[in-house]
Amino acid sequence: MEPCYLTAADAAARIRAKTLTCEELVRSCLKRIEERDADVRAFIHLDPARAIAKARELDKRPPLGPLHGIPFAVKDMIDTVDMPTTHNSPLYQGHQPAKDAGCVAVVRHNGALILGKTDTVEFASGGRKALTRNPHNLAHTPGGSSSGSGAAVGDFMVPLAFGTQTGGSHIRPASFNGIYGLKPTWSTVTREGAKMLSPMCDTVGWYGRSVADLQLVAEAFRIFSPAAEKPVETRQLRVAVVQTPYWHRIEPAGREALAIAAKRLQQAGAKVEDMTLPQQFGSTFEAQETIMHGEGAAAFLPELLAHGDRLHSDLRALAENSRNVTGRAMAAAHDLVADCRKTFDAYFSSFDVVLTPSVPGEAPEGLHTTGDWVFNAFWTVLHVPCLAIPCTRGSKGLPVGIQIIGPRYGDARLLRIAEAVAAAVDVEQSKS
Amino acid sequence: MEPCYLTAADAAARIRAKTLTCEELVRSCLKRIEERDADVRAFIHLDPARAIAKARELDKRPPLGPLHGIPFAVKDMIDTVDMPTTHNSPLYQGHQPAKDAGCVAVVRHNGALILGKTDTVEFASGGRKALTRNPHNLAHTPGGSSSGSGAAVGDFMVPLAFGTQTGGSHIRPASFNGIYGLKPTWSTVTREGAKMLSPMCDTVGWYGRSVADLQLVAEAFRIFSPAAEKPVETRQLRVAVVQTPYWHRIEPAGREALAIAAKRLQQAGAKVEDMTLPQQFGSTFEAQETIMHGEGAAAFLPELLAHGDRLHSDLRALAENSRNVTGRAMAAAHDLVADCRKTFDAYFSSFDVVLTPSVPGEAPEGLHTTGDWVFNAFWTVLHVPCLAIPCTRGSKGLPVGIQIIGPRYGDARLLRIAEAVAAAVDVEQSKS
Repeated sequence: MEPCYLTAADAAARIRAKTLTCEELVRSCLKRIEERDADVRAFIHLDPARAIAKARELDKRPPLGPLHGIPFAVKDMIDTVDMPTTHNSPLYQGHQPAKDAGCVAVVRHNGALILGKTDTVEFASGGRKALTRNPHNLAHTPGGSSSGSGAAVGDFMVPLAFGTQTGGSHIRPASFNGIYGLKPTWSTVTREGAKMLSPMCDTVGWYGRSVADLQLVAEAFRIFSPAAEKPVETRQLRVAVVQTPYWHRIEPAGREALAIAAKRLQQAGAKVEDMTLPQQFGSTFEAQETIMHGEGAAAFLPELLAHGDRLHSDLRALAENSRNVTGRAMAAAHDLVADCRKTFDAYFSSFDVVLTPSVPGEAPEGLHTTGDWVFNAFWTVLHVPCLAIPCTRGSKGLPVGIQIIGPRYGDARLLRIAEAVAAAVDVEQSKS
Repeated sequence: MEPCYLTAADAAARIRAKTLTCEELVRSCLKRIEERDADVRAFIHLDPARAIAKARELDKRPPLGPLHGIPFAVKDMIDTVDMPTTHNSPLYQGHQPAKDAGCVAVVRHNGALILGKTDTVEFASGGRKALTRNPHNLAHTPGGSSSGSGAAVGDFMVPLAFGTQTGGSHIRPASFNGIYGLKPTWSTVTREGAKMLSPMCDTVGWYGRSVADLQLVAEAFRIFSPAAEKPVETRQLRVAVVQTPYWHRIEPAGREALAIAAKRLQQAGAKVEDMTLPQQFGSTFEAQETIMHGEGAAAFLPELLAHGDRLHSDLRALAENSRNVTGRAMAAAHDLVADCRKTFDAYFSSFDVVLTPSVPGEAPEGLHTTGDWVFNAFWTVLHVPCLAIPCTRGSKGLPVGIQIIGPRYGDARLLRIAEAVAAAVDVEQSKS
């Protein structure tokens, strides 16, 4: 097998065992990118010669951490000290930050090889879409705003990549590209050096091709001691299936994915029950929008003042608070979601995990859209950890995943639960 | 009068009226700095020749905004594209950011002349103290972490300066230096490019020497339309005097300042009543500490991995979560303060403004301390706007202020209320 097809966890184990070199791995990834990226267009910046030199350097030294030698792609609204950060904006072409973003520094100091920058919706906020196409069908979107990161991991160009989620930018592309993704609990991972949109929502997450991949990165971030959690037995798992107040926007493929996942978990011995969220959760999607737009006005004011009409009209509208979000509406939105956070956490005395849609269905056709984030944004503002798991394929042959959700700061346990859930639900991988 | 003694609002009016040039103003500030800063040590970075060249350039062009030509100092943990940002850390000496922080960009595009960088507690988080001394008595602290910014404005070196507050880093130095300061509602002003400590608490604020100075900057930030609020009549003002659950840490000078302010407001015709916060507010100081330390671990992990033992032991302890803050404690702290935010806002149906201590008393002697932030940190985590107003002097002759507080997002109205309160309370300025 070509090393590029290895999961990050498998590749890391082989590098530790010295049955694979960092150089072999990165060369395989670069070859895959060369073959595929003219079509997929995941990368905005890539320097193959430099990546090989870095890999050779990593091969010469003792392991820096759990990610030693693993190529890692970075969404291009996250700062990198050795590569430009363009935000996919015409205004930031060639912009070279003076410092790594916090998340990049953490994985780099744990041995990761920062391979390149991936295309994104402009500033991960609005404006231009990425040029990236869905590797499973080039006529379809890979989702967004973490378009390039999702597609690069889904297409075996790189084992790991950073995305971000303010609305539904991380979990949605995971589903559309048939990969795993973790959006950790709000503010357990530093987002310093990632472009701000909404301080109350912005979250850095990562993609991989197995639960073990997600764990490897979580270990580097020391999120409330992931190593301390014990493996979970599927037979002891109490799963709450939550259709959410936005079920009217589900499509046949999303409905089927949720049903299949629930059934497979039941067959594996888990206790699976339906749960209905209280009525106030029906306003959380709107609350997230209010908060994101209210805070976005402050976040994009500097860009508006610096660039004026050259700033994309979507972002000008954001900076100018064109939705007329009021302070009163902001406070009411914050109070609503704070109540819901508390209510939601309390459910975990009766359940271990929530199983819920990650997307309405398959990735839509065309690059004019990145799909519907209705099943993501309210979870983001609730601050809970969300973990995307591949599940099935829809009628067009495209992947459709589900997500599992834990209580705030329950990331370490959620990663353990994900092992059990993935073994039951992700039949394709469990077979391979 | 030497122009350096003008308030920002007065200087801006003269520049607009062409009775003062930007060059005259900056030369006066530079002269004051030259005379005083060997003692006060407010500035870490200053380039007089460049500042004069910038002032001349501003004199040649039509006004860029309300801050045209006004010198503005920046706390040295906030990024500046044309000056190093050292965070007062030995690890960042000479570090040159590639981009202005959002707040710097906003005032720069509104015409402010970024004059220099001011000393700070290391990363505004711990570690080394600033070398800055209190301009009212060099043997005393100016407070911190915004030490240099507070002292520079208090000592007439610069009319305006940025500080930040995560615990009590902004309002406390305002009181100790006898100046005005606004810590706006959380996330109404972008803190992108200011060193992160706690995403739930970090707030950029500014100092001036009058309410009009604070308004001038608020106008540049367009905080929920400050211009839309009408002036407030003192006779119609309903003031709640709040001793807070931490009143046992008040000192005689702080007790007297609060009493004097209440009395002066009453004499000016305001309706002044005592208000006691409910019992749950008695845990908010501890909740802020939990949140700050839990989030600080994530924020400083990159520094720990990059610098190891060279990182100051305070910051290593933070990054290593030496207080063993748990996820459960984090969630409980978030839920408590969310409840208190809602409860506190509701009081504003009966009151217009809260009057409360900004500090226990006068600035302590010595530079080994920056004073006690017990009267600040819980307000910070409650996200409410806090506005510091000078009031009186203590037995050592040092300034002691009070602060007024409004509901979340009530910044524009609070600035109007501050006009009325300052006219009654700040007798020294009202006389001058």
